[in-house]
Amino acid sequence: MTADRIEKLAASLRTSGLDAVILNPGPTLTYLTGLRFHLMERPVVLVLTPGRPPALILPELEMEKLRDQPFTPFPYGENPDDWHTAFTGAIQSLRLNGKRIGVEPSHLRLLEFRYVRDAAPEAEYPDASSALAALRMRKDPSEVQKMKRAVQIAQSALEAAIPLIKVGMTEKELAAELVVQLLRNGSEPEMPFSPIVSAGPNSANPHASPSDRKIKRGDLLVVDWGATHDGYVSDLTRTFAVGDVDDECQKIHKIVQEANAAGRAAAKPGVPCAAVDKAARSVIVAAGYGAFFTHRTGHGIGMEVHEDPYIRGDNTELLEPGMAFTVEPGIYLPNRNGARVEDNVVITGGGADELSDMPREMRIIG
Amino acid sequence: MTADRIEKLAASLRTSGLDAVILNPGPTLTYLTGLRFHLMERPVVLVLTPGRPPALILPELEMEKLRDQPFTPFPYGENPDDWHTAFTGAIQSLRLNGKRIGVEPSHLRLLEFRYVRDAAPEAEYPDASSALAALRMRKDPSEVQKMKRAVQIAQSALEAAIPLIKVGMTEKELAAELVVQLLRNGSEPEMPFSPIVSAGPNSANPHASPSDRKIKRGDLLVVDWGATHDGYVSDLTRTFAVGDVDDECQKIHKIVQEANAAGRAAAKPGVPCAAVDKAARSVIVAAGYGAFFTHRTGHGIGMEVHEDPYIRGDNTELLEPGMAFTVEPGIYLPNRNGARVEDNVVITGGGADELSDMPREMRIIG
Repeated sequence: MTADRIEKLAASLRTSGLDAVILNPGPTLTYLTGLRFHLMERPVVLVLTPGRPPALILPELEMEKLRDQPFTPFPYGENPDDWHTAFTGAIQSLRLNGKRIGVEPSHLRLLEFRYVRDAAPEAEYPDASSALAALRMRKDPSEVQKMKRAVQIAQSALEAAIPLIKVGMTEKELAAELVVQLLRNGSEPEMPFSPIVSAGPNSANPHASPSDRKIKRGDLLVVDWGATHDGYVSDLTRTFAVGDVDDECQKIHKIVQEANAAGRAAAKPGVPCAAVDKAARSVIVAAGYGAFFTHRTGHGIGMEVHEDPYIRGDNTELLEPGMAFTVEPGIYLPNRNGARVEDNVVITGGGADELSDMPREMRIIG
Repeated sequence: MTADRIEKLAASLRTSGLDAVILNPGPTLTYLTGLRFHLMERPVVLVLTPGRPPALILPELEMEKLRDQPFTPFPYGENPDDWHTAFTGAIQSLRLNGKRIGVEPSHLRLLEFRYVRDAAPEAEYPDASSALAALRMRKDPSEVQKMKRAVQIAQSALEAAIPLIKVGMTEKELAAELVVQLLRNGSEPEMPFSPIVSAGPNSANPHASPSDRKIKRGDLLVVDWGATHDGYVSDLTRTFAVGDVDDECQKIHKIVQEANAAGRAAAKPGVPCAAVDKAARSVIVAAGYGAFFTHRTGHGIGMEVHEDPYIRGDNTELLEPGMAFTVEPGIYLPNRNGARVEDNVVITGGGADELSDMPREMRIIG
């Protein structure tokens, strides 16, 4: 599996005129090698050069992970003064000084970059993000299966948490309970993000952190949560009414739910990402709330909770089978209430497969 | 509080001959500003220039977080093609092109760095890690209080999980149960790391990930876990005997426990970090297991689970009041068993305060 992926990357590097690519610990390294490392103060760098065995610069402490693996290791000890030797060894053995070495700027830190650059000061370091994202963007069936399971775990966790929601509970308390249910329902402990639980005025902030504010009758309650299964993640949102909510809350939720349905309906192969954004956004604009939908309609999802393709009005990239992303329109009325409904979909040969299917209508709780 | 910290940093920048420092989301940014941002595909950069209000380049979406805060915002919209304008605006308003702008290579990504560098191509970007680490390395009493609470949460979580450990349970199942107990006992959902639960041969890998292997009688069981409280973390390890274990297991645990005690006893102001490493390591070397203690004795801890000061044999840095770190000697016998005992201590005026106090002797479980 990973040998196939490395071979595909090699072909793509040749097309892009790159001699190699360097990766630090993160989803792309794991996607290509199956190896997992933490991002720590000790630099770990994978060097992929088409036609050569991959080189891996790593702490001696981590050598155990390479057992029976086809990587050429360049290990270093505990003293940082000696680390550069391992980098020089790897770069020299692959003769990469003066070459074009691709990087992934959204993951690579200056820490790793400077060690490599000191070993290959004459090299160029162009952005290889597109080539790397292109590989990971088209999910194969085994990846879709993992994402579906990550969605199912998230959905059963929220269903288990709903009966526990009480008026007077704080947002933080509900968020902690939801995390417990995510684990009980099978999520890996490294979750894609800490759940957002935001009620009343806080729900009008799309990126709110759970606070000590108590959930009150009349609030809209936004829950934005996800699970991890076998390295793949889900990212969903549902909005609830805490007891009776006013007409405006009812109205904005209904519009958002329609916008979400319109976005999902627009998702199919051959249409630009922008068309999905436009489909969802038009519903909200037509209802007169365009100014209160302050973010893009969605983002790609897979091993990372935010990845390509981005569902923005200016993204002309065409959807292809295997692309997976969120559809998450929202309306945020400052200091009052907000509503968002978010699903995960994956493009198929003829349309889109909806990974999430939890009821989207505004349920009344508390 | 944070104004004091920014003022201290300004003084330190002047001493280091730096005109500014740039920070991306992470512990140092939070330490200095109290603000929290996720590390995402949208770059967020704080620019601190002594004597000027801090500038913050951020997505419009995040502007709400700056309300009532003394930062000059440079917001940008959803289209990445426009992001460079915000960076240019910030750099020009602070006249930083051609100046010396400090960076933190273990956190700053090429993503943020390249946006800044494109806006200030004539600037130099020296490593400001030491100046930044020096600030965070000496914990004040309010920080120590938070760390103590993070230790207490971790300890009560493990005590709650111990009665649930059964022979035949997998390492992953126990790790998930421990995470549940960490949350129930008050840890924030963003934990310092996923607990390590490793038994039998797996315990001989100091960085093992919990596996599907079932816990068996005769295993040593290593649990390395921590909690987060108010942004500060704990990192502890205890080793258990699953039923009766052989003499060698008993022996290595006893040596490790003595090495841990020796390391803690050596921790006091004015001694080099290396002395703590030496105190712990000598016990293991004297017992003939030196080759099987394959890592440093400890690492600093605070807002990050690994930070300065590092407790290594080659670190001549002197311990000072407020410095907090782990003492975690171990013995790892490949393909057999491993043992580690880890505590968190903070240097005081006359010695060291032990934040953790859970029994260290090898308890028998299962």
